Amino acid sequence: MQVPSPSVREAASMYGTAVAVFLVILVAALQGSAPPESPFPYHIPLDPEGTLELSWNVSYVQETVHFQLLVRELKAGVLFGMSDRGELENADLVVLWTDGDGAHFGDAWSDQKGQIHLDAQQDYQLLRAQRTREGLSLLFKRPFGTCDPKDYLIEDGTVHLVYGILEEPFQSLEAINVSSLQTGLQRVQLLKPNISIPALPSDMRTMEIRAPDVLVPGQETTYWCYITELPDGFPRHHIVMYEPIVTEGNEALVHHMEVFQCAAEFESFPHFSGPCDSKMKPERLNYCRHVLAAWALGAKAFYYPEEAGLAFGGPGSSRFLRLEVHYHNPLMIKGRRDSSGIRLYYTATLRRFDAGIMELGLVYTPVMAIPPQETGFVLTGYCTDKCTQLALPPSGIHIFASQLHTHLTGRKVVTVLARDGREKEIVNRDNHYSPHFQEIRMLKKVVSVHPGDVLITSCTYNTGDRKLATVGGFGILEEMCVNYVHYYPLTQLELCKSAVDPGFLQKYFHLVNRFNSEEVCTCPQTSVPEQFASVPWNSFNRQVLKALYSFAPISMHCNKSSAVRFQGEWNLQPLPEIISKLEEPTRHCPASRGQSPAGPTMVSIGGGKG
Amino acid sequence: MQVPSPSVREAASMYGTAVAVFLVILVAALQGSAPPESPFPYHIPLDPEGTLELSWNVSYVQETVHFQLLVRELKAGVLFGMSDRGELENADLVVLWTDGDGAHFGDAWSDQKGQIHLDAQQDYQLLRAQRTREGLSLLFKRPFGTCDPKDYLIEDGTVHLVYGILEEPFQSLEAINVSSLQTGLQRVQLLKPNISIPALPSDMRTMEIRAPDVLVPGQETTYWCYITELPDGFPRHHIVMYEPIVTEGNEALVHHMEVFQCAAEFESFPHFSGPCDSKMKPERLNYCRHVLAAWALGAKAFYYPEEAGLAFGGPGSSRFLRLEVHYHNPLMIKGRRDSSGIRLYYTATLRRFDAGIMELGLVYTPVMAIPPQETGFVLTGYCTDKCTQLALPPSGIHIFASQLHTHLTGRKVVTVLARDGREKEIVNRDNHYSPHFQEIRMLKKVVSVHPGDVLITSCTYNTGDRKLATVGGFGILEEMCVNYVHYYPLTQLELCKSAVDPGFLQKYFHLVNRFNSEEVCTCPQTSVPEQFASVPWNSFNRQVLKALYSFAPISMHCNKSSAVRFQGEWNLQPLPEIISKLEEPTRHCPASRGQSPAGPTMVSIGGGKG
Repeated sequence: MQVPSPSVREAASMYGTAVAVFLVILVAALQGSAPPESPFPYHIPLDPEGTLELSWNVSYVQETVHFQLLVRELKAGVLFGMSDRGELENADLVVLWTDGDGAHFGDAWSDQKGQIHLDAQQDYQLLRAQRTREGLSLLFKRPFGTCDPKDYLIEDGTVHLVYGILEEPFQSLEAINVSSLQTGLQRVQLLKPNISIPALPSDMRTMEIRAPDVLVPGQETTYWCYITELPDGFPRHHIVMYEPIVTEGNEALVHHMEVFQCAAEFESFPHFSGPCDSKMKPERLNYCRHVLAAWALGAKAFYYPEEAGLAFGGPGSSRFLRLEVHYHNPLMIKGRRDSSGIRLYYTATLRRFDAGIMELGLVYTPVMAIPPQETGFVLTGYCTDKCTQLALPPSGIHIFASQLHTHLTGRKVVTVLARDGREKEIVNRDNHYSPHFQEIRMLKKVVSVHPGDVLITSCTYNTGDRKLATVGGFGILEEMCVNYVHYYPLTQLELCKSAVDPGFLQKYFHLVNRFNSEEVCTCPQTSVPEQFASVPWNSFNRQVLKALYSFAPISMHCNKSSAVRFQGEWNLQPLPEIISKLEEPTRHCPASRGQSPAGPTMVSIGGGKG
Repeated sequence: MQVPSPSVREAASMYGTAVAVFLVILVAALQGSAPPESPFPYHIPLDPEGTLELSWNVSYVQETVHFQLLVRELKAGVLFGMSDRGELENADLVVLWTDGDGAHFGDAWSDQKGQIHLDAQQDYQLLRAQRTREGLSLLFKRPFGTCDPKDYLIEDGTVHLVYGILEEPFQSLEAINVSSLQTGLQRVQLLKPNISIPALPSDMRTMEIRAPDVLVPGQETTYWCYITELPDGFPRHHIVMYEPIVTEGNEALVHHMEVFQCAAEFESFPHFSGPCDSKMKPERLNYCRHVLAAWALGAKAFYYPEEAGLAFGGPGSSRFLRLEVHYHNPLMIKGRRDSSGIRLYYTATLRRFDAGIMELGLVYTPVMAIPPQETGFVLTGYCTDKCTQLALPPSGIHIFASQLHTHLTGRKVVTVLARDGREKEIVNRDNHYSPHFQEIRMLKKVVSVHPGDVLITSCTYNTGDRKLATVGGFGILEEMCVNYVHYYPLTQLELCKSAVDPGFLQKYFHLVNRFNSEEVCTCPQTSVPEQFASVPWNSFNRQVLKALYSFAPISMHCNKSSAVRFQGEWNLQPLPEIISKLEEPTRHCPASRGQSPAGPTMVSIGGGKG
């Protein structure tokens, strides 16, 4: 990174100020609709200092997002946009920049070297540029899809927002390279579902689960663990909603928070407030893993459907709760105090249905492995018709929320519902999934699962930086593929997952052996991870492993709890056969686009070096 | 197919005539460039009766084809276009139709049910509609690529032209379904290379090889065989060009013609003139397989490069030649006489280099097989660096023409040149290859092959209609993957082909056995075709076969003639490693397209039912 010499920096700063002053706040050519009447329900700080703040709303009818970007201390410009995984290269951008004579706003893109180019087609449309007390406020909108191949397609799931600060003027857009700028990324679910708030009970009470007065460590990443407990004799209630409580000023610091219930088998848990990886943390806290509530940056309140609530309290459940707060502190700010947490809203008037959480995807076992150096390897776990037939009530269950989960190499996750061999609908999908951004998401549409349905969960992994195979397991360097679905009415089925039949995996190792002059140790005392570690990863062994996973019979976990299976034969089950796949929606790209101007919008006519 | 009742047909015919009369021959809105100054060098009849005749030229600078379509007996309209393999569904079309009040010309497409729709973007541009003595002449142009996803991309290689005759008016385009029309297809190389004609020797003489006065059989397909001979003592000459001689009136009947030289080991060959599959055909004619010249419909004269010629005559070569003419007679016309053939232009003043023909691709062996029910299975044959190192002269060879060859399931063929592990250029490619249209094609650009280069020939097959695996071999129901390249200077290397190592294929059968409860017979007395016939074609066995072919070592045929290998070890050779692939050219699609009108062009304002 180039650091300009003080004099240059100083000049640039003066210059920037001048531009900011001269940035005449005219309402720039409003070629489209007026600013939306509804305010912006969603807000997020983009940078750790909070100098860039994004607000937005979503119109599903117009398939458009309106953005309001607040730039608190405008220098010579700003860039904002989206990219596949938060990289500044190959990004879809809007740029506000000045060439000294005026400020311009344009739809642009960065190439793989980070150089910026103006889009042939201008799809971000500036609606207003306004000086406010807080800073410069830019209002612009963009359709979800633009048909411009250089543009990002705004989809459900995670969106990686990127930003950059222009410290000095540039003669042209092409003169800008993102590598020389202060840049960053922020993950967010941009397309929030448009769900009306369910009616809330009149006897609703609240409970705040927060770690009081935490001194946030001056390091980039901290997971803070805090144990609290429900009042003695607290009876059974239903949680009907919850929302984050973020200490004012720490909005850019608190990344995500979860409340877990501890295991009922232990009478009590020691109190603790400290980093989760502390050596002082009592061992027993590892038994506090049953999720009650989860929030991540950008999310708002979470509401249960009107007819269901999540039970807590009462006999048979632990009084002890664990709060986990993830502090993301890249500027290593020291001395900051925080008391963030989650506010639970609950009722004693139990709703008609208990809500439950079911685990779909892959069993945590090393037989499911990803070869090294794969950029998009897919593993798939099944919840079979046989299991749903046995375990679901005749009227089915209704999935209303979902939390996707993998470890570090996960890049995409999707769960599809199939019926009679035909894919019917997507339960949840994230094409830009990040293991660093796992939130419980309300589904746009409740998905009903009937006995005999199949749920297929596929995860895509990138092991480009690994030297050895990545096997399934609990370790952070091992992998998982899980979708925690939130549903009602509660059933006994807690876990509906699969893995390849271990006998067929041994046949695979045997054939690898045969084709590769006995390099792989298949002696019976060898463990599966060791066998995978000795596979020479040539194209043949990679492709045959893929073929094996999409062919070999599976072993099903159709379980009441993590150890208790439903009765039946669950080994050597046939892979569910899918005879028709869901089609990708085709985006209708109009041949003549008309409205969008061909060039950037002139925002200011202010004179240069005043 | 629906046949209209006589009265309807009669009315339609009257109507059609009326429309034709009223089709005011105005020069329709000439929004583009004037008609090209150059005439149309290429011509082809579209239908067997020759009522539709297409002429065209190609501008590589503008990446545009100008078409002139002559409609000899206009009824209520005509449609013309292109599709992947000559089907009328999913075709890219221009339609001239009348709704009774006027005639319209528009860029359209047919969906998979054959219904016609107007393109949102009009890329076929009408330049002139003119009544001539011969019929209605439509002049229009189209860019190679249009960026309209509904449009066909005009590429090198075979193009499947389609046509249809509108017998009656239609109220709208959408009312037309191709299934109710008289339709057909014609294959042609649309993008002829733009090669300047080499200087020809002053002592050039000609020789016509034609079967005199053949009574063309009244059946759809006839291959006619005719044996002729060079004059006694005819010395060594160089063929420098050749061209077709097609009997006037039979232009739509003569599909392709080839001249073969017979084998030198036989003193003489019996004379014969009759169908090639006749029981009367002497056995010995099967030894006349060395190609001297080949022509197919739509091709023009073939010129050798100025410094090379194809040797014929003289000692060491047979005096006997076999002419093969393919008559395509779908209307089963009887009593037609034909004397078509090929005119060879040759010189006694030998040119500097002898030209030669080399066979690239796959060895004719059953070890290379395609599973049934595959729509795009690829087999690849290699000419390795080791072979070219040994067999090519230090200055290399120059490939100037190529003839691609597969049997019935071939759909695409491509040969790529690689150097130092990197793909460098395409030798020849046909993405719409048809086994029914095999012509020798001049390359747009001569490709030089140096010692150490690798030539990779891949064929894509469609076995969607097969029940069993299709193995490699000579039979018409077996497959081949061959590129006959024409090059100079002549070398001893006649054949540079490969196949998978047979030992590794046996390992494949063994593992199929292991994974499929011993269904495959691997007893040593079983033949490879029988082994393939017993494979249960599940996804695993298909994918592992693919993986095997792209991994297992190969057996090379690096041969002087079909039986004599160059010295060296040619078994268990490593597959050439390719570290960088050629990138597909990206088509730059302008965001604003401007010029093209949004709707069809009104061609006539003539009143309806006069």
